[in-house]
Amino acid sequence: MTDSRRGAARTEAIMRTTLELGQEIGYAKLSMEAIAARAGAGKHTIYRRWPSKGALFLDSLLSLYKSSLDYPDTGDIVADLRTQIHAAVDLLGNPPFGPLYQALVGEAQHDPQLADALNERFIKPQADRTVARLKAAQDQGQLSPAFDLGLAMAILSGPLYFQFLITQEPLTHEYVDRVLQVLFTGMGKPS
Amino acid sequence: MTDSRRGAARTEAIMRTTLELGQEIGYAKLSMEAIAARAGAGKHTIYRRWPSKGALFLDSLLSLYKSSLDYPDTGDIVADLRTQIHAAVDLLGNPPFGPLYQALVGEAQHDPQLADALNERFIKPQADRTVARLKAAQDQGQLSPAFDLGLAMAILSGPLYFQFLITQEPLTHEYVDRVLQVLFTGMGKPS
Repeated sequence: MTDSRRGAARTEAIMRTTLELGQEIGYAKLSMEAIAARAGAGKHTIYRRWPSKGALFLDSLLSLYKSSLDYPDTGDIVADLRTQIHAAVDLLGNPPFGPLYQALVGEAQHDPQLADALNERFIKPQADRTVARLKAAQDQGQLSPAFDLGLAMAILSGPLYFQFLITQEPLTHEYVDRVLQVLFTGMGKPS
Repeated sequence: MTDSRRGAARTEAIMRTTLELGQEIGYAKLSMEAIAARAGAGKHTIYRRWPSKGALFLDSLLSLYKSSLDYPDTGDIVADLRTQIHAAVDLLGNPPFGPLYQALVGEAQHDPQLADALNERFIKPQADRTVARLKAAQDQGQLSPAFDLGLAMAILSGPLYFQFLITQEPLTHEYVDRVLQVLFTGMGKPS
């Protein structure tokens, strides 16, 4: 192996170990020492690449995610949102991603740098894709021209995160469908 | 003082100390030992009443909250929701409640018992009041008859929690007004 392939293999082994250990013992008990020991890597090797446990955990988690949440574009915005948000709840509602992501968001409440990294690397790219897809739909007359695209993520994701983080009830496709129904037609009386 | 008044005064002193220390050093570093020492109470006295740091913290936090989030009923559901949600963001968006509540929700991601207690003692009573107020409005024809009341909390609170916990941008009255606008009129094209 070349040096750079060896480096990539080592990086991958460290991230895989982080996820394995995270699932076994939970985020709170995870330590850089334990990860280094199990991955057979030096602690300084890990710290050179990741300044904190949070940074290593975020990278490891995002390595699971790939771009599986890309927006489809079949020309039907309601169908495409359903497809995309069903995929999101499949990810959030199941191991390994779900419980590890929940732990990460929990940690981000105590660690502003981790919260920034989460937004920069995970939330903002999703928001950009969401707004682009909704903008196209709005231009085609499939959404209200008055709909405030700057709120798209909060409106569409908020009810999922509320269930995921607060009530901690299961996320299901049926729940997504009920939420989309309300969001599209609105709570107000028909005009 | 009678024994029971002395007990109530001690309970109050412990909860006040918990909030003070929580603000000074953050939830993560808070310990039962430090609280006991500053409050001048025995550790066993604290553990007799609160089985864990999370339970003590939740009680202490809720002592700040009282019933300030009761729903007004002026007969106008849009105005009443605005008033109520403005009060909620004033609470969430400012110390001492805001950062302490954020820490509690973070901890609830690692501690299922704390998550259950949070739901039982804080979220569910709010949900019941919200649904009761919305049901009255629906009966008076001020909301869509099709609006799914079981989703009320997730739909109304979700976008606030998304901003509070995920993007961690400031919660403002203006944000609430924009969100309510979308929720009432819906994202879909006017029928």
